[in-house]
Amino acid sequence: MDDTDLLESYRRFLADRVLPLETRFLAEGFAVVEPALAEVRAAAHEEGLWAPQLPRSLGGLGLPLAEFAEVARVLGRSPLGHYAVNCQAPDAGNLELLIDHGTDDQKRTYLEPLARGEIRSCFAMTEPGRAGSNPVWMDTRAVRDGDGWRIDGRKWFASSAEGAAFAVVVAVTDPEAERHRRATLFIVPTDTPGYRLERNLPVMGEAGSGWASHGEVVLEGCRVPAGTLLGGEGEGFRMAQERLGPGRIHHCMRWVGIAERALEALCRRASERELAPGTPLAERGVVKEWIADTAIELEAARGMVRRAAAAVDRLGSRGARVEISMIKVFTARVMLDALDRAIQVHGGLGVTDLAPDPLAWLWRHERAARIYDGPDEVHRQVVARAMLKRFGGTPGGSGA
Amino acid sequence: MDDTDLLESYRRFLADRVLPLETRFLAEGFAVVEPALAEVRAAAHEEGLWAPQLPRSLGGLGLPLAEFAEVARVLGRSPLGHYAVNCQAPDAGNLELLIDHGTDDQKRTYLEPLARGEIRSCFAMTEPGRAGSNPVWMDTRAVRDGDGWRIDGRKWFASSAEGAAFAVVVAVTDPEAERHRRATLFIVPTDTPGYRLERNLPVMGEAGSGWASHGEVVLEGCRVPAGTLLGGEGEGFRMAQERLGPGRIHHCMRWVGIAERALEALCRRASERELAPGTPLAERGVVKEWIADTAIELEAARGMVRRAAAAVDRLGSRGARVEISMIKVFTARVMLDALDRAIQVHGGLGVTDLAPDPLAWLWRHERAARIYDGPDEVHRQVVARAMLKRFGGTPGGSGA
Amino acid sequence: MDDTDLLESYRRFLADRVLPLETRFLAEGFAVVEPALAEVRAAAHEEGLWAPQLPRSLGGLGLPLAEFAEVARVLGRSPLGHYAVNCQAPDAGNLELLIDHGTDDQKRTYLEPLARGEIRSCFAMTEPGRAGSNPVWMDTRAVRDGDGWRIDGRKWFASSAEGAAFAVVVAVTDPEAERHRRATLFIVPTDTPGYRLERNLPVMGEAGSGWASHGEVVLEGCRVPAGTLLGGEGEGFRMAQERLGPGRIHHCMRWVGIAERALEALCRRASERELAPGTPLAERGVVKEWIADTAIELEAARGMVRRAAAAVDRLGSRGARVEISMIKVFTARVMLDALDRAIQVHGGLGVTDLAPDPLAWLWRHERAARIYDGPDEVHRQVVARAMLKRFGGTPGGSGA
Amino acid sequence: MDDTDLLESYRRFLADRVLPLETRFLAEGFAVVEPALAEVRAAAHEEGLWAPQLPRSLGGLGLPLAEFAEVARVLGRSPLGHYAVNCQAPDAGNLELLIDHGTDDQKRTYLEPLARGEIRSCFAMTEPGRAGSNPVWMDTRAVRDGDGWRIDGRKWFASSAEGAAFAVVVAVTDPEAERHRRATLFIVPTDTPGYRLERNLPVMGEAGSGWASHGEVVLEGCRVPAGTLLGGEGEGFRMAQERLGPGRIHHCMRWVGIAERALEALCRRASERELAPGTPLAERGVVKEWIADTAIELEAARGMVRRAAAAVDRLGSRGARVEISMIKVFTARVMLDALDRAIQVHGGLGVTDLAPDPLAWLWRHERAARIYDGPDEVHRQVVARAMLKRFGGTPGGSGA
Repeated sequence: MDDTDLLESYRRFLADRVLPLETRFLAEGFAVVEPALAEVRAAAHEEGLWAPQLPRSLGGLGLPLAEFAEVARVLGRSPLGHYAVNCQAPDAGNLELLIDHGTDDQKRTYLEPLARGEIRSCFAMTEPGRAGSNPVWMDTRAVRDGDGWRIDGRKWFASSAEGAAFAVVVAVTDPEAERHRRATLFIVPTDTPGYRLERNLPVMGEAGSGWASHGEVVLEGCRVPAGTLLGGEGEGFRMAQERLGPGRIHHCMRWVGIAERALEALCRRASERELAPGTPLAERGVVKEWIADTAIELEAARGMVRRAAAAVDRLGSRGARVEISMIKVFTARVMLDALDRAIQVHGGLGVTDLAPDPLAWLWRHERAARIYDGPDEVHRQVVARAMLKRFGGTPGGSGA
Repeated sequence: MDDTDLLESYRRFLADRVLPLETRFLAEGFAVVEPALAEVRAAAHEEGLWAPQLPRSLGGLGLPLAEFAEVARVLGRSPLGHYAVNCQAPDAGNLELLIDHGTDDQKRTYLEPLARGEIRSCFAMTEPGRAGSNPVWMDTRAVRDGDGWRIDGRKWFASSAEGAAFAVVVAVTDPEAERHRRATLFIVPTDTPGYRLERNLPVMGEAGSGWASHGEVVLEGCRVPAGTLLGGEGEGFRMAQERLGPGRIHHCMRWVGIAERALEALCRRASERELAPGTPLAERGVVKEWIADTAIELEAARGMVRRAAAAVDRLGSRGARVEISMIKVFTARVMLDALDRAIQVHGGLGVTDLAPDPLAWLWRHERAARIYDGPDEVHRQVVARAMLKRFGGTPGGSGA
Repeated sequence: MDDTDLLESYRRFLADRVLPLETRFLAEGFAVVEPALAEVRAAAHEEGLWAPQLPRSLGGLGLPLAEFAEVARVLGRSPLGHYAVNCQAPDAGNLELLIDHGTDDQKRTYLEPLARGEIRSCFAMTEPGRAGSNPVWMDTRAVRDGDGWRIDGRKWFASSAEGAAFAVVVAVTDPEAERHRRATLFIVPTDTPGYRLERNLPVMGEAGSGWASHGEVVLEGCRVPAGTLLGGEGEGFRMAQERLGPGRIHHCMRWVGIAERALEALCRRASERELAPGTPLAERGVVKEWIADTAIELEAARGMVRRAAAAVDRLGSRGARVEISMIKVFTARVMLDALDRAIQVHGGLGVTDLAPDPLAWLWRHERAARIYDGPDEVHRQVVARAMLKRFGGTPGGSGA
Repeated sequence: MDDTDLLESYRRFLADRVLPLETRFLAEGFAVVEPALAEVRAAAHEEGLWAPQLPRSLGGLGLPLAEFAEVARVLGRSPLGHYAVNCQAPDAGNLELLIDHGTDDQKRTYLEPLARGEIRSCFAMTEPGRAGSNPVWMDTRAVRDGDGWRIDGRKWFASSAEGAAFAVVVAVTDPEAERHRRATLFIVPTDTPGYRLERNLPVMGEAGSGWASHGEVVLEGCRVPAGTLLGGEGEGFRMAQERLGPGRIHHCMRWVGIAERALEALCRRASERELAPGTPLAERGVVKEWIADTAIELEAARGMVRRAAAAVDRLGSRGARVEISMIKVFTARVMLDALDRAIQVHGGLGVTDLAPDPLAWLWRHERAARIYDGPDEVHRQVVARAMLKRFGGTPGGSGA
């Protein structure tokens, strides 16, 4: 099966199995469609579409990031697409962490069932009291307690905490260390005493449920054994960053898929909706401008994301961090603008949850794209610093 | 009580009585806070703040539009502010229609209890099958039926239909007439057989309730007596436009209030949130740019809205329609950008419904500001045509 | 003669006397039209239009700033308008300095002939080696030398230096003082030995001539007597700032005039130019958007400038500095966007110097509007700091 | 010599030979540096860098468009770069026309000396009286006259007409034909009686000279023999479009080079210029935003241009017209924004012609990039129509 065939298979899978569940998901929530999605996931296994990003040894397709990017784009068209084949955040990131840093025991207990889609997980890093954009400043502490550790703290935006079998928790183990060496990761089973999902955050009017929710988690005297430490002590910040690199690419690919869907919805509505008998909206010059600008920006974003994915394959996510920061800023903006224009062309229908495509849902829930995994401002600083380093001292007319 | 005192009274009223209800309204809906709001409304009566826009003969304060604009701005800070003193859409517009065009009987039956806040109403014009931006193209028909009329059709975005005592319905009475003379207004009590509120539209994830909802209304063989006809036959389009003029100003004033609140929230968060110990967000240059741009655009909008209100007082809403179109486009954009920046500076908190100010709620529900009462595109055309008429033929260097 | 009549007189004066000189000015430079302009200036005297901003005692009309704003807007339509009635920069600012701070002797020698338009002047503050946006950091030194002072330094962007009878020079007199108290102003006649106009700067491809030029000035051992010190020692920074306040308003008014001209040119071209036989450009939706956006932004700018002018009349330029910073940023942007759109609608003609209105000339020479008298960034900081001070600490829902 | 080596050679060639001539070119014009450029061109021959876009049989390097794109980007950094190796507009386009459509005689007489750089040429299509954006509407007529043709009409924006040995003139030969079949191309030697270069247009204040000028050309009873007809009768429109496709890519590549230079200038100035002792501009958050946004947009543009070049190699310029329209709009905007930001960070120096990089010159002369070879609006329409065709009818959730 060559690349084009594979993409075509994902397209058909999305159209035939995933999109039919969207309306109920949007209206009634994740918990309601979870059983139906379980069947879809089983079908993904059968059709050879399961976990495109995972190595074959774990039951996946083993695609390099540059190829996975295309799949992620196709699946990204629907809020349920990634989940349907087990490449969804936050599990995808946790899978990578476990692959790279898990002990044999951790792999057996957490990685394998996660890869098979039998359990879900979450990642608990951001804290309500501290700026998410400064990941080295956190209050959650883990202190040695006998053989193990005792963790105390409060986390939020732990996406998919509801129903997760375990959380990967970032906690400060050495507050006196150099600031990038203070934190450590722990695998905390959610049934550990002292771990508590306090609530699902009301995000844009919805607390959500299950995988489609964002939890606020409290750890109070939460005791975990030594074997739950993931990676090395003091490696938490570095590993979290390492995890975020490909995660951002996954998001960007997904956003390109969303923007593509928005562009299509924009074109379709412009063609079908009449302003007056026989005069479709598409005849208005300004509607054509929206279409053109969306198409142009999308073309730009698509190419940038591909190149960044190839750069990660080649250089690792640390080596490609400037490229990653670039696409994070650019793609989020392109997606949100595409959705905004698509809403506008739908008129009143656009702000309801009744449009043929979930434009309003995507627009309000993806607003966070400019915030999570580093706000635009932080990524722009990364880019600027790299450029200043590259060009700040060189002589005038030369250069790449 | 001079102007400044009056505004100060409204400010205190808002802070003391209205804002405390916001959190419950946002989390649990209008129906839940309606009883508490009834008490607030009683207090508004007692404190001499009731219905600032209505004539004294109807129990209001009789403010001209230019003065009401300031009140509306103060109250606009909260989604509940206008409702609390009975100057909220859609009732405010219906009140004006009834004042200007109601028969004595209609005034006694509908205007007076509406002015006293004993009943609510809605306005049913937009149709799901037709572009709202072309108000002369609609399918709802009213045909003579004995002494009265029989109305058939489907309307949506009939805001506040749930709980309304009557609807003002726009229906085509003469499909063969010149296109601006086809429609007529009818007052349809909501208990009339054949009138049915089919559902509250799910807008941005919420169907809402009571005054804070947008209804889809079906009229099937709905018979109303002759006395329900409001204004003249064939006058429906003209009256609806006349109603929208001041309505748009009311919205713009409210949006300025929202933008002011967003700017304050932006400044407060920037001052209080630390990026690192001792370093507030406000020290970031880009945050200062957001603050400055918001403040500048808001200052521009505030002045424009004042001038447009004065123009309506002077020239009527038809005479000031270019000014009205200008502020509709400009103010909606300023408000949405202000909210967007305020959300961004709040980080993750900004997309939740937990922030001290309801930024995410306002941002998603006011997205419709660029659509309702004429989308941006239509208002820009009004402005452009006026400019082309004024300048398209005049010689070069001269002019106003 | 009431206000409207006065404006109408300025409009006619501009159309009849000033605009006819524009083409030659643009093609051949200021020096070539200077004799013709002298006749225009004589006519301004005769017609009672001379120096609207100056007090009657100095032969002007004594208009308050809010009224002068309207005149400045009308005259601003042409690059020669302000010069024609002696309210042009940099002389207007120097006139204010001399009125407020000049000794009797300085008034007789410099103020009176300047007010009569017999001589011209320049203002020498910015230095090539130092950021203009930090006016307290300069290298030009004045040291006591016998009874007088010896000044050494290099200045640039001394507008209108060519042909000026004297320069007002900002020089550091006490480098050890608190940084706002280091500088002092000196009136330096341009025939003083050691003062030298090194060249007219090539700005946007043109070195210009006479009043329409920007000089680089060298002071080498330039000795001036004690009586040339203007205002108090150490008062230079404060006086320069004081001078800039109204100066910025003058510029903003002028820019509004330019934007109005651009809007008219845009409408006219859109009406007249055919894309195909019988199809004017104005029928394109996007052209209408340009027209509408320009008109809306211009309406916003016009109102803001008026309010800022009234604020300066009421509070002084220091009291109104936030308003001034707001309009500086906003109006410059509105003007440049208006010109840019007008150029675009003119197609190839727009980038030539052959269009009926000097769009390309204004666009390239007014690009500096976002830089001179404080770049956008600095003014945005002023605005942001004021907002942070006002709102950074106040409680949530209240406020103006 | 592999690709990287070749690019490195061009970089060195540009730095060593071309950039040193820039200052004189900008200050004194093309004619003054033409002799020095002749030596540079000779060196290009010697160093194997001549005419990278031409086939080897004509003395070029025979690079496919995708490879030439990289060279064009490197050379595009300087206004003289393309000229230095004979890949400059308008000759590059005329060379292509002659290669594809020239008769043996035309090739011998015009193509070969042009390829060798012994003569120059121009292209005369746009007319002052007709919208350049509608290339099928023109007034210039060619009528049969004996064996040959008599041409009458007026053209402008015939770039490089001064000094050209021949002009390729577009003239209507059959006004009654279908509108895309009316025009024909003619090779008109500039010494033909009846052909007259009336003037160099004053563009952004400069009439320019030689290759760096834009001519207005008059043809009055200009008789040319039959052998001057280039391609087929009635093929003029199609051939002109065919010529423009790769021409637009050439421009876009060049613009990317300009934007790269602007970004470098921006970074360098930000690093070097101090706002206060020890505080470079680069420490300002807003300057970092400018740098980041420029870098991001440039990265997007660079990739898009490469893909479009590859598409032209693969599909021809007609097959890749949507891609070409996309990059035309996007790249012009990116370049102009990059220049604008670079100017802003240079402060007063930025608007002079004294900055280390010719920012102000590029900014004002490349403003035309949004106009020539089709204004933004026309290209957006091309893109929008393609999208509407692709998506306007397809069902919702599927698609590419």
